[in-house]
Amino acid sequence: MKTSVKSDIEIAQSSTLKPIKEIADKLQLNEEDLEYYGKYKAKITYEKINQLKTKDDGKLFLVTSINPTPAGEGKSTVTIGLGDALSKLGHKTVIALREPSLGPTMGLKGGATGGGYAQVLPMEDINLHFTGDFHALTAANNAISALLDNHIHQGNALQIDPRRIVWKRAVDLNDRALRKVVVGLGGPGQGVPREDGFDITVASEMMAVLCLAKDLEDLKQRIANMVVAYNYDKNPITVGDLGIAGAITLLLKDALKPNLVQTIEHTPAIVHGGPFANIAHGCNSIMATKTALKLADYVVTEAGFGADLGAEKFLDIKSRMAGLKPDGVVIVATIRALKMHGGMKKEDLHQESVEALKAGLQNLHKHVDTIRQYGLPFVVAINRFLSDTEMEIAELKHWCAAQNIPVSLTEVWGKGGKGGIDLANKLLKTIEEKENNFQPLYPLELSIVEKIRTVVQKVYGGKDVEFSSQAFKQIEEFERFGWSNLPVCIAKTQYSLSDDPLKVGRPTDFIIHVRELKAKLGAGFIVALTGDVLTMPGLPKKPAAFQMDVDENGNAVGLF
Amino acid sequence: MKTSVKSDIEIAQSSTLKPIKEIADKLQLNEEDLEYYGKYKAKITYEKINQLKTKDDGKLFLVTSINPTPAGEGKSTVTIGLGDALSKLGHKTVIALREPSLGPTMGLKGGATGGGYAQVLPMEDINLHFTGDFHALTAANNAISALLDNHIHQGNALQIDPRRIVWKRAVDLNDRALRKVVVGLGGPGQGVPREDGFDITVASEMMAVLCLAKDLEDLKQRIANMVVAYNYDKNPITVGDLGIAGAITLLLKDALKPNLVQTIEHTPAIVHGGPFANIAHGCNSIMATKTALKLADYVVTEAGFGADLGAEKFLDIKSRMAGLKPDGVVIVATIRALKMHGGMKKEDLHQESVEALKAGLQNLHKHVDTIRQYGLPFVVAINRFLSDTEMEIAELKHWCAAQNIPVSLTEVWGKGGKGGIDLANKLLKTIEEKENNFQPLYPLELSIVEKIRTVVQKVYGGKDVEFSSQAFKQIEEFERFGWSNLPVCIAKTQYSLSDDPLKVGRPTDFIIHVRELKAKLGAGFIVALTGDVLTMPGLPKKPAAFQMDVDENGNAVGLF
Repeated sequence: MKTSVKSDIEIAQSSTLKPIKEIADKLQLNEEDLEYYGKYKAKITYEKINQLKTKDDGKLFLVTSINPTPAGEGKSTVTIGLGDALSKLGHKTVIALREPSLGPTMGLKGGATGGGYAQVLPMEDINLHFTGDFHALTAANNAISALLDNHIHQGNALQIDPRRIVWKRAVDLNDRALRKVVVGLGGPGQGVPREDGFDITVASEMMAVLCLAKDLEDLKQRIANMVVAYNYDKNPITVGDLGIAGAITLLLKDALKPNLVQTIEHTPAIVHGGPFANIAHGCNSIMATKTALKLADYVVTEAGFGADLGAEKFLDIKSRMAGLKPDGVVIVATIRALKMHGGMKKEDLHQESVEALKAGLQNLHKHVDTIRQYGLPFVVAINRFLSDTEMEIAELKHWCAAQNIPVSLTEVWGKGGKGGIDLANKLLKTIEEKENNFQPLYPLELSIVEKIRTVVQKVYGGKDVEFSSQAFKQIEEFERFGWSNLPVCIAKTQYSLSDDPLKVGRPTDFIIHVRELKAKLGAGFIVALTGDVLTMPGLPKKPAAFQMDVDENGNAVGLF
Repeated sequence: MKTSVKSDIEIAQSSTLKPIKEIADKLQLNEEDLEYYGKYKAKITYEKINQLKTKDDGKLFLVTSINPTPAGEGKSTVTIGLGDALSKLGHKTVIALREPSLGPTMGLKGGATGGGYAQVLPMEDINLHFTGDFHALTAANNAISALLDNHIHQGNALQIDPRRIVWKRAVDLNDRALRKVVVGLGGPGQGVPREDGFDITVASEMMAVLCLAKDLEDLKQRIANMVVAYNYDKNPITVGDLGIAGAITLLLKDALKPNLVQTIEHTPAIVHGGPFANIAHGCNSIMATKTALKLADYVVTEAGFGADLGAEKFLDIKSRMAGLKPDGVVIVATIRALKMHGGMKKEDLHQESVEALKAGLQNLHKHVDTIRQYGLPFVVAINRFLSDTEMEIAELKHWCAAQNIPVSLTEVWGKGGKGGIDLANKLLKTIEEKENNFQPLYPLELSIVEKIRTVVQKVYGGKDVEFSSQAFKQIEEFERFGWSNLPVCIAKTQYSLSDDPLKVGRPTDFIIHVRELKAKLGAGFIVALTGDVLTMPGLPKKPAAFQMDVDENGNAVGLF
């Protein structure tokens, strides 16, 4: 319950961190297993990760949510609070989260390290440069571009068609002016003019590849496989063809190592990798999740945005590639957000409205149905706010009981792990009692069209999918190249089950419009871009950067 | 003497590093004074740097060189070897170097961590991402651009003229295709179209500002002062005007802390900041140099390229701003490079040629004259190569004796510190015996034109300077804004004393052509661009990246 008047950064800065060595101790990691980054962050060495391979895996919990609204759901907060609660119950627990992107931190969203008394620390570092993983990805991404443009400039032996370059540059910022650019201007000494664009790093294939690689060798192979362009014969050109897969992998030799930090309550957390879930696959790294499973009895991880985006990709892409099987799922909602899904405006949310709540519960219902389809046990977690009324809470409990949905009211924001004990107990009970029949939604042998249609109908609840003529042409092309046996990664707005961000609640009978496809052979999936989803966000009129500052001792101010 | 058949990376990887804690011990730095980055790198805390302020300074040696040639001079190698030699002689020594840029590492030049048995380690990390300082600078630089473009897009309250934006984006790569670009294309939702360009990070004002800042508060003030554009009334707009100086400083809160590493012989080295010397001011950070002076009895530092570039800027910009007074200077040359200055081609250098050497010594002579003008004691260090003949060495010694120039033959590449003992002794003797009458070359009160002319005539040995009509217009403008009392930072080719890279040796009677000026109010200097000097390098036909790789254990391969 949000009763504290302290801001997240004030709570974070008034918390006492333990040296990361002590956190590592809890996991039987010793000094040689760690590479320190300051006093409170460390990477885990490849040697240790290799040694762990023979150990048994712990149990894996996935935290997902309803479709996000401006009211806030607190999925990361619940993930962290659940981890703290499991620790409090005496279980050896590791929380596995994504790293935040600098773009949204300086833009609208602020950081992404939880909130209140359920945060990972040091929040300032994690929200800014952390251990440099994203910067390494940005550098690797842009080194490919520089070497590609140089290849063309120096004679173009591979006969790359400058009009058919699909590899974009990247910055880890919200920078709309870089969405569409022309590079190589200024005459023959300055390269070959062509159209280009920048994606935000967290939407790049480079990020997906880091998160899906099993080890350095796999990373190098995936990097070699990435398609950067097509030649004048319209055949694909890869990073491997450019002869630079080794150099690009070298740039990521440290970024691939998982990062160990702690929560306010000193629960170990591995924070590593961070693709967006609307325009990318939305899960932390396989290296991180697998390492966490070797180190702990319980691992709590989250996937971005709602179950239609992050969880679907966690279950159909990441779990399949990594051979993971989640043991249980938590679906996070707030009464405020459900009321918005029921049609209330943000400014009216302080008013009690059982009617709006009832209508909004349909959004939750769809995500519950989705998780049931995957055959997974689950608990709904309601992240309590002070404004939630007794009537609303009663209605929610009544509805869950009627639908046979286990539900827990959590107060992790205000109380930390203590506020998540009930959720932890219910989750442990649920996975004891309920069967786990997990399987991915579709077999890889389905056609690209059928795979997309399956997600649209079963996960989004849509009627069908429509493809632009460009998308159809691309599907034909991809099939000709033998790329049709890959999973699909659908880029869609997070705000709606449909591709129209304004359709909240549980829309039905809608059509999803696929305008363009992208073959991500390094990541190992086919991206389908729907609606107007952008791979480079913009900044708002008053960016969060206006509040950010640093005092003379190097302490961050105004991060939230 | 280059007798070893091992490559630099082989020597580096077969060296045994000590934990950085042990290196810190030598300087009476303890655990709380350090923030570790892995086992062999650490940043020094602000708390410690503040504590050190009351301590006396050690002595400062500046290493510079003749104009570089493709034959190689080994200035960093001599700097490191001299530091190791001083350590061997029992002196508490710290080496203060610049951080290498990823662009040249992946391009033509390879890394910049010394060579042979005179290297700083871990060379792979230092040459790649190191502690993330340059990535933080790149992010800070590009955040300014994103926030600037967003300001215009969101209504342009400051009335910024998009045709008069002087702030460029940055990447720390060699990427010629980014020199001239158009951004903001794609319609009203994607920002305002305008011309832009990318500089390499090491040429950016952001880099200069980090290197010239005395502390975080000074950094913030410098950032606030940076001019990013002019409004429709042609008045300057700064980062401070955009309201983001705090956020940008926050992004650099860790980057400003000096980085501690070690040489192969375990001499402490502070490697921090790294502006190019041809297109920027070419010195490591003031934070690093000042901290080193507090920690050691002797500090050996270098400035980029020849004495016409790095040393001039070290003496006229950095020393003046930081209140530093070098105690002695080392001027590095090789017989091979001198023969190239005497007209020999690179492929003929294995042939003995006393004549070419004699002619080439004129280049050394000019740099000796330059250092004498600054009133500083100096020693010439000849970095020996196996191909140097007895006749050539005899001629060199004879010439130095005739000119009353103290000279030492060093063999630090093959022998480490042992190979620099003679140089160290001669340097210590020289500063004992010779007077030090250091003063900067020009008073700040001179006009911009006169300051540039002074450098051209006294340091380059040129006849005069010519300004383009654009440059003249800019000077008038800068004077009107009250910016004329700043030092000048001349961007010039490193290969010649003149602005024509083909004029080796000691050209005379030449004119330097200033085509454009840039007001860097954060750095606190006026940049004058001469000749064709570029602020974004390109990649060669066969970039070093083609050789770079990583093995399955994370070890770098092919870095040099």
